[in-house]
Amino acid sequence: SLNRIKASGLKLRFCTNETQATREKFVKKLQGMGFDISVAEVTAPAPAACRILKERSLRPHLLVHNDLVPEFEEIDKANPNCVVIGDAAENFTYANLNEAFRLLIGMEKPVLISLGRGRYYKETDGLKLDVGAYMKALEYACDVQAEVVGKPAKMFFESALAEMGVPPQQAIMIGDDIVNDVGGAQRCGMRALQVRTGKYR
Amino acid sequence: SLNRIKASGLKLRFCTNETQATREKFVKKLQGMGFDISVAEVTAPAPAACRILKERSLRPHLLVHNDLVPEFEEIDKANPNCVVIGDAAENFTYANLNEAFRLLIGMEKPVLISLGRGRYYKETDGLKLDVGAYMKALEYACDVQAEVVGKPAKMFFESALAEMGVPPQQAIMIGDDIVNDVGGAQRCGMRALQVRTGKYR
Repeated sequence: SLNRIKASGLKLRFCTNETQATREKFVKKLQGMGFDISVAEVTAPAPAACRILKERSLRPHLLVHNDLVPEFEEIDKANPNCVVIGDAAENFTYANLNEAFRLLIGMEKPVLISLGRGRYYKETDGLKLDVGAYMKALEYACDVQAEVVGKPAKMFFESALAEMGVPPQQAIMIGDDIVNDVGGAQRCGMRALQVRTGKYR
Repeated sequence: SLNRIKASGLKLRFCTNETQATREKFVKKLQGMGFDISVAEVTAPAPAACRILKERSLRPHLLVHNDLVPEFEEIDKANPNCVVIGDAAENFTYANLNEAFRLLIGMEKPVLISLGRGRYYKETDGLKLDVGAYMKALEYACDVQAEVVGKPAKMFFESALAEMGVPPQQAIMIGDDIVNDVGGAQRCGMRALQVRTGKYR
């Protein structure tokens, strides 16, 4: 169906909340599964965060998955004035959480950017706490409100639309998550379609 | 001044949110500093939680500091139907947090008991996230509300009063924390006095 959409001349954009790998790695995985997809067609939280960091001259301390770090290669990270948190998985250690917390609470105006607000997800060895849980921990400890990048944030869909040059009324979002995919797109003025695959239940 | 209070015949009770050690250890430390204090005079979150667990036939999974475990010695912990979280410090690992989360979300009616709701505290090597931050993470992930034991919970002060056999109007709380000590006691109908020592700033 992907090939039929592409053949029809419709514009296409992949919107993912994946923050455990670079877009390169993510795309390679999908290509390996037979999907016709390129890095340029992917909207993901890390590059969206990079745009925000540049626009606002923010220098992040990163609490993210090792595999995501290359996405922030061009960003100045010296003397951090904000914290960026992603699904860091094994990097969510007691020491790393305390370090991010100390930097954040030490800032004159703490800025916390979160690459998503997911509660949990499933892996082969069981459920795992997602970035949203750790975001809440830091929010509470520092009495700040995180800025969330990724679905269902309005800005995230808007940048995907801008990249295609398409107004929301002429776009349709297809996804398996009723909140992140369908709800987020609809709040942007897009239509949305829920597929009963993936994590649908 | 402790000795003068005791000599005067006034009833005395030590209310602590300490959850990194048993009362025995806590009392030994204070005795070593010259304070006339015994275990029987201490109201602490762990024994208060044990009373709740017994009353409601709850079998806890413990995510607490190793040194606190002996306080739960007499509690049945097989086949847990609730999670008790304390300031677990180094035990707040990614694996332990996921384990507590999985048990909690797998329960028909998740019960989360938190030994305090502190945001952070200071140690010689810097600030540390306190139990409240991790409580918030689990609350968010499982969509539950934790039951907080310890100051400033009303029930905590009430059990201290019950142990002394004194009505709140005849008691005065002395502490250095405006929220946990002073606010909590006042909401119980006690008078309260803030001392400018300890973490006062």
